[in-house]
Amino acid sequence: MSDITEATLRHEIAHLARVELLSPKPQETEDFFTKLLGMYVTKREGQSTYLRGYEDPYQWSLKITESAEPGLGHMGLRTTSPEALDRRLDSLRADGNECNWIPDGEELGYGKTFAFKSADGHNIHIMWEADNYVAPPELSSKIVTRKSRKPLQGMPVKRLDHLNLMASDVGGVRDTFERNLGFRTTESVLDGDTQIGAWMSSNILGHEVACMRDMTGGKGRLHHIAFFYGNAQHNIDAAEMFREYDIEIEAGPDTHGITQGQFLYVFEPGGNRIELFGEPGFLHLQPDLETQIWQLSDIDTGLAIGGAKLPWETYFTYGTPSPLPLAEHREKFADFGPGAAPAEEPVSVSS
Amino acid sequence: MSDITEATLRHEIAHLARVELLSPKPQETEDFFTKLLGMYVTKREGQSTYLRGYEDPYQWSLKITESAEPGLGHMGLRTTSPEALDRRLDSLRADGNECNWIPDGEELGYGKTFAFKSADGHNIHIMWEADNYVAPPELSSKIVTRKSRKPLQGMPVKRLDHLNLMASDVGGVRDTFERNLGFRTTESVLDGDTQIGAWMSSNILGHEVACMRDMTGGKGRLHHIAFFYGNAQHNIDAAEMFREYDIEIEAGPDTHGITQGQFLYVFEPGGNRIELFGEPGFLHLQPDLETQIWQLSDIDTGLAIGGAKLPWETYFTYGTPSPLPLAEHREKFADFGPGAAPAEEPVSVSS
Amino acid sequence: MSDITEATLRHEIAHLARVELLSPKPQETEDFFTKLLGMYVTKREGQSTYLRGYEDPYQWSLKITESAEPGLGHMGLRTTSPEALDRRLDSLRADGNECNWIPDGEELGYGKTFAFKSADGHNIHIMWEADNYVAPPELSSKIVTRKSRKPLQGMPVKRLDHLNLMASDVGGVRDTFERNLGFRTTESVLDGDTQIGAWMSSNILGHEVACMRDMTGGKGRLHHIAFFYGNAQHNIDAAEMFREYDIEIEAGPDTHGITQGQFLYVFEPGGNRIELFGEPGFLHLQPDLETQIWQLSDIDTGLAIGGAKLPWETYFTYGTPSPLPLAEHREKFADFGPGAAPAEEPVSVSS
Amino acid sequence: MSDITEATLRHEIAHLARVELLSPKPQETEDFFTKLLGMYVTKREGQSTYLRGYEDPYQWSLKITESAEPGLGHMGLRTTSPEALDRRLDSLRADGNECNWIPDGEELGYGKTFAFKSADGHNIHIMWEADNYVAPPELSSKIVTRKSRKPLQGMPVKRLDHLNLMASDVGGVRDTFERNLGFRTTESVLDGDTQIGAWMSSNILGHEVACMRDMTGGKGRLHHIAFFYGNAQHNIDAAEMFREYDIEIEAGPDTHGITQGQFLYVFEPGGNRIELFGEPGFLHLQPDLETQIWQLSDIDTGLAIGGAKLPWETYFTYGTPSPLPLAEHREKFADFGPGAAPAEEPVSVSS
Repeated sequence: MSDITEATLRHEIAHLARVELLSPKPQETEDFFTKLLGMYVTKREGQSTYLRGYEDPYQWSLKITESAEPGLGHMGLRTTSPEALDRRLDSLRADGNECNWIPDGEELGYGKTFAFKSADGHNIHIMWEADNYVAPPELSSKIVTRKSRKPLQGMPVKRLDHLNLMASDVGGVRDTFERNLGFRTTESVLDGDTQIGAWMSSNILGHEVACMRDMTGGKGRLHHIAFFYGNAQHNIDAAEMFREYDIEIEAGPDTHGITQGQFLYVFEPGGNRIELFGEPGFLHLQPDLETQIWQLSDIDTGLAIGGAKLPWETYFTYGTPSPLPLAEHREKFADFGPGAAPAEEPVSVSS
Repeated sequence: MSDITEATLRHEIAHLARVELLSPKPQETEDFFTKLLGMYVTKREGQSTYLRGYEDPYQWSLKITESAEPGLGHMGLRTTSPEALDRRLDSLRADGNECNWIPDGEELGYGKTFAFKSADGHNIHIMWEADNYVAPPELSSKIVTRKSRKPLQGMPVKRLDHLNLMASDVGGVRDTFERNLGFRTTESVLDGDTQIGAWMSSNILGHEVACMRDMTGGKGRLHHIAFFYGNAQHNIDAAEMFREYDIEIEAGPDTHGITQGQFLYVFEPGGNRIELFGEPGFLHLQPDLETQIWQLSDIDTGLAIGGAKLPWETYFTYGTPSPLPLAEHREKFADFGPGAAPAEEPVSVSS
Repeated sequence: MSDITEATLRHEIAHLARVELLSPKPQETEDFFTKLLGMYVTKREGQSTYLRGYEDPYQWSLKITESAEPGLGHMGLRTTSPEALDRRLDSLRADGNECNWIPDGEELGYGKTFAFKSADGHNIHIMWEADNYVAPPELSSKIVTRKSRKPLQGMPVKRLDHLNLMASDVGGVRDTFERNLGFRTTESVLDGDTQIGAWMSSNILGHEVACMRDMTGGKGRLHHIAFFYGNAQHNIDAAEMFREYDIEIEAGPDTHGITQGQFLYVFEPGGNRIELFGEPGFLHLQPDLETQIWQLSDIDTGLAIGGAKLPWETYFTYGTPSPLPLAEHREKFADFGPGAAPAEEPVSVSS
Repeated sequence: MSDITEATLRHEIAHLARVELLSPKPQETEDFFTKLLGMYVTKREGQSTYLRGYEDPYQWSLKITESAEPGLGHMGLRTTSPEALDRRLDSLRADGNECNWIPDGEELGYGKTFAFKSADGHNIHIMWEADNYVAPPELSSKIVTRKSRKPLQGMPVKRLDHLNLMASDVGGVRDTFERNLGFRTTESVLDGDTQIGAWMSSNILGHEVACMRDMTGGKGRLHHIAFFYGNAQHNIDAAEMFREYDIEIEAGPDTHGITQGQFLYVFEPGGNRIELFGEPGFLHLQPDLETQIWQLSDIDTGLAIGGAKLPWETYFTYGTPSPLPLAEHREKFADFGPGAAPAEEPVSVSS
């Protein structure tokens, strides 16, 4: 298995299959995803609810679990084959990562899975076995690639798209995704020589996993998870819906220069940042395009092609879990800015 | 003529037919409107260039005139009949406004016109006679309501849409438009009892003339003129074009709660703020809807339904002419904010 | 009152306020408008249900009434003043139209109303008094011009937009709307000297009432009523929804050259043709633009700017009420075409 | 090399890199792609012009070559590695395909390339070496993944997207793409047991190569090549542009159920069918989704989700080269239909 070529390594991971989100307000969080974002509930069990968008391929792409603090439970990547699962395990262990098989049946609708932690402490699951979702007749779609009929509730998202990890050590997180999981870094932001952001993919999408520097010095936090509309107007419509239904909008709709993806950032009631993803942006068909670099001097275009401003007091400093609730965080960081020193008491997060 | 009913008065002005824009960089300003916004040049004459969008009805809707300072030359309203022109003249004079006929032939393609000044000093022209534009065969469109074929240059705007006047005395400007010109104020922003914004229309559009308080204490300045796309995606496309072609974006694309119109604000090279207008927003079909009031407490939704922020340091303080160039203005006002006191030296503008 | 000028006459009617639709399947028809098109139910009473879109200004814009046959119950126009109501009555009577006051309180939320018939027999109501809709707190919107919050159900339409009457005598219908109601005909289709279509408006919209020739020789039928999205993407989304939820699509989404409005035609379960109206098309700001003429030779562009085909076997021949159900009608007319002779047995409709 | 696993085989081809289009009217064809579709000309040489869209990665994606008949010169696929090129050659030869190296330097900006023919005779080139396009400063974009600035001419397409081959033997063509090139067939249309359409991809796109049965019995013809907008509104805008600038629209804008891609089909002046591709449709992230099957009974949704009709007289019967010019072809096939027998004289095409 050591003879996997670089070209082959790039296709070991198929895609981001699922995310577990922690919420101190699980019912409000569930309502956000079902009533506003039109997701289907697959099952409620224990402290968790399992959901899927109408084009998500498996039993669930989102698990909401009650927790004292918001944040990422785990992210789950699916390999392209059973052999790839074994090879990824070997590769991660060979580089000294602790990997553990999770108990059979622990995650509804998925099989044999191992877990490890990113360099910054994020929980990552890898699996091959995943039950294909087949809709009951009353939910089946006439469009054969559509796993279930688009619901008539709210503004339904199609599927889970990507997630963004905040990290104290962007380079370390990136290293694992590249070396052990075969992701390529499509775009990167440099502050001089320091890497402060990396967008990574195992297929032709601009990213399924991104990692941005935690400007507060925190470790292993979640920046956001993103759900896919694939359409600019749906982001505009969603912004109006969030405004009308009392969901706080952080920024957007606009288009990032980075990835050329269309963004809309909001905070779900549990405190996690959620992105609605409009057009998917640049597709990396060219197999040998090197990582595209953004210098901080050009970052304005990188952050937003239109006039949107990503607010320093939240976008670059707030992740989940957070030492302070969102409103207090915003107040505390209101006077900081791109050039300001971070808080004297380092804003760190216990894992 | 004094027996004009209120219902009749409301339809004396047909629409905003033309705007003269002053520019210290007339060639760059012309390039902005022709190369990027795809406007046709009708004629160049003396210090002026006359332009029209492909659906503008007359010989021109925009006149760019070389000038030491940017700003509004004049705005021109067309009446619904020749009699209405006479009645508006009588009404304005009866209320003590100085009205003067401008010399015949002074404005290409328009006839008999009189001029007066708003309470704040903005130049306003009123006319009935206007030459219908008829395209030469090579520019004619297959779509019979389209005055000329959509050009293949840049992102063509359809037509002039509206303009926004900054004023020291919003109430005074509004009064004239309502009493003498029959506009109705569709929406208004109040700071306690003080009116700080008024959106006015003589037809079912949400506004063809708006007036906002000049927070710097200046008088008679231009906030912006707006051109019509009628389409959200075109505002998104235009934002990308402006970013790529070095035109500064102030805010947007997003949607105002006020008027529900979709905005994108940029500064043309001469220094004037230009709006690109996406979807036209709420149409006032109901004939007796009273003025809708925004309190400052709800103004966030009024300014933008999505996450856009209209920047205090320019949007609420910069108009043309400006005592300082845009970049210096921004720097000077960077520390001010909604609650901050204005500059000690009042930022005034010589007319 | 005889001294009303032509310019004044043009503004006597404010807009199309309401439509009564007859349906042999009232519950299915109601479900179509509530579950798919997100309309609010104001009241159910007797054989009727009253509905409104979230931006409709009054208590209802659509009344669904159970009936043996589909079709138009009546259309209701609101005047711009109480005096205009009296003047329209006088004018209609002066031209020999029979006008009757309908009993007080017969139409929920509207006052003093008279009824008359078009030259072809369509029922037309005219009124001034209309109760302004005020949402209860839980349905109120943060956007002050929005009468109620956009629902989370289906793809909500904003409001009633326009309607299209099939007529044996297009010229006769047009005459009344122009002479007695002050509409102007913005666009017209001519087959040689014969007028086969007229698009008419009392404001700057391209049309609020259209009239097309009934190619079957029928009289006084309904072609379609249209509800407003104001947005191209919403027509695309609605088409997908109709496809998924078993509503038959006749044509679209595409854009008519006539009016430049974006169309999507479907048949509601009761058998009536319903249009979803995307972008509103060309706005008639120019007060003296004459009627724009389409010759049959250019009608392809007039009917659709894109590649859509309006099917002869339904679009030009099927109206409600219909002698045959839709499916049988389609079969009967399948072999006819633009150049074919109409059926030997004239397809007429008893009023 | 024989031990390539199925999972590995799926990633041997990176993407469709280039297409050569033959045209009897090369200047008009070039004008179509440059003036209307905003493509850049890389070079004109001999009987050919080389073009690229502003996000195409290499020196050219489209080569227009003067020829007596329209049609496909060749299609060119790029592998994911140099080794993959060798492996594909071995695999094709092992199955008896004749493969020839084309002379060095024959195709501007691409290196070592071999050519073979599909089961139906279409020319296919395979290569690894491709010069990365780097824009000169005046054409470079601020968006780092964008290879060149979006031009201000016409409605610029981003890049080549896919192509569709007409074939007498759909199964044979599919076989080669699956067995030797590692494509997976994402969707397939069956008429009973007979395969009449296959959509194939080597990445997560719904298709980069499609193959449809030639209903005339012809062999080895081109159905269409497609260029990417990625956006519904751009397809609407393009339709209007084509209408205004005398380019014949065949069908659309609408959305296929098959692939969920948004289509607009036109004929370029040389006679080839060109598709403008709006939203890219369903992305195949799930690595083990089997081929989704459309039965002819559901094909209405498969062909168009909205109301568009793909015309039998051209869409299912006209390819290039064509025995008859488009207008004559349409007339000849006007009376045929889905159930009609093909012409007695088989409409065949000499290769």
